[in-house]
Amino acid sequence: MEVKVVKHILEANERIASQNRTLFDDKGIVVLNLMGSPGAGKTTLLERTIEALKGSTTMAVIEGDITSSHDAERIAAHSIPAVQINTGGACHLDGNMVRDALAELTLDGIELLVVENVGNLVCPAEFNMGEHHKVMIIATTEGDDKPEKYPLMFQVSQVLLLNKIDLLPHLNFNMERFREEAHKVNPKLTIMPISCTTGEGLEAWFHWLEEKTTGKA
Amino acid sequence: MEVKVVKHILEANERIASQNRTLFDDKGIVVLNLMGSPGAGKTTLLERTIEALKGSTTMAVIEGDITSSHDAERIAAHSIPAVQINTGGACHLDGNMVRDALAELTLDGIELLVVENVGNLVCPAEFNMGEHHKVMIIATTEGDDKPEKYPLMFQVSQVLLLNKIDLLPHLNFNMERFREEAHKVNPKLTIMPISCTTGEGLEAWFHWLEEKTTGKA
Repeated sequence: MEVKVVKHILEANERIASQNRTLFDDKGIVVLNLMGSPGAGKTTLLERTIEALKGSTTMAVIEGDITSSHDAERIAAHSIPAVQINTGGACHLDGNMVRDALAELTLDGIELLVVENVGNLVCPAEFNMGEHHKVMIIATTEGDDKPEKYPLMFQVSQVLLLNKIDLLPHLNFNMERFREEAHKVNPKLTIMPISCTTGEGLEAWFHWLEEKTTGKA
Repeated sequence: MEVKVVKHILEANERIASQNRTLFDDKGIVVLNLMGSPGAGKTTLLERTIEALKGSTTMAVIEGDITSSHDAERIAAHSIPAVQINTGGACHLDGNMVRDALAELTLDGIELLVVENVGNLVCPAEFNMGEHHKVMIIATTEGDDKPEKYPLMFQVSQVLLLNKIDLLPHLNFNMERFREEAHKVNPKLTIMPISCTTGEGLEAWFHWLEEKTTGKA
């Protein structure tokens, strides 16, 4: 019986996600679902991205957290429209939560909307919200064995941002192994090593975003 | 309707967890539920703990992962009985999964059983498995804002191991803020700063384990 209910929830979610997607396409907004473990650097990446795209791309952000409005406040401090979703316990965002948050945003004129998911390398990978691209961020400090252990997130993502490469000299992280295992799970995954602290590698990420927003990919 | 089903699942889980607990108590085994994000250092902590307790405490380990037997193999290499649970997608262990794994272990003579949960700072906090103590491990690299954002894990844990303190000089981590926020969520939480790389702080953890296993908690 449980399986039926889960299926029902997933189907209902797909329906709402597809309605969200229609809205995004009508408005010409490129939408990213940004996922990763707690502390991988999702909000810091967004802060760096907002600063870099200022003047060229109009952005908005939806922040997903179990509780608190800490992250939305960090984003709003950069003068970007930000809405906080509090899931109240749920470990991922879904189409319905994002739909409710969209009602709080003025979408006209927005070119890029990033939805930062709840910090979790597992469940967010299962739920679409109508986004165009799933982007995962993982820190070098999480270890090079993650693709084998959390494959779904790697499978569903188009881009993997490997953050905190500035800490590599202090870690036992095998970059070759990581790349190999990640591509074993998803041969099409674009891997970008970055550091939100030093800024290294971020140009490639900004370039990718530019391509997607100007091409309305 | 979904809520009813969830309640049903949680109630069924509590019943199985309580049966597990009776078994643990009958056998005189102290059982820990070790939880934390992917890459917080759960398996490495276990490896250090096994080496330190060798000769004084008889240990066994149950490893929880979505897929792969990577972690159980790491543990078994230390000549400790290890069973791998593959959840096949589920983002946490529950009483039933642990009961099935117990059937694969010879429990007589075991003094300490550690169950390493799936890497996730959210859902594992909701499910008991019959353990005596919940222990969470979090890395300094995950940031000092986690107690506010993932409060349940901090609330249900008795011990918090703050790992990777060797990386503090390279991070923007406010230890005072972290301690304060963690104790705001759970004033009784025992916080132990450790480094599984340098070994710093691990004596306090071994001492805590010794107290719990000799006093049978």
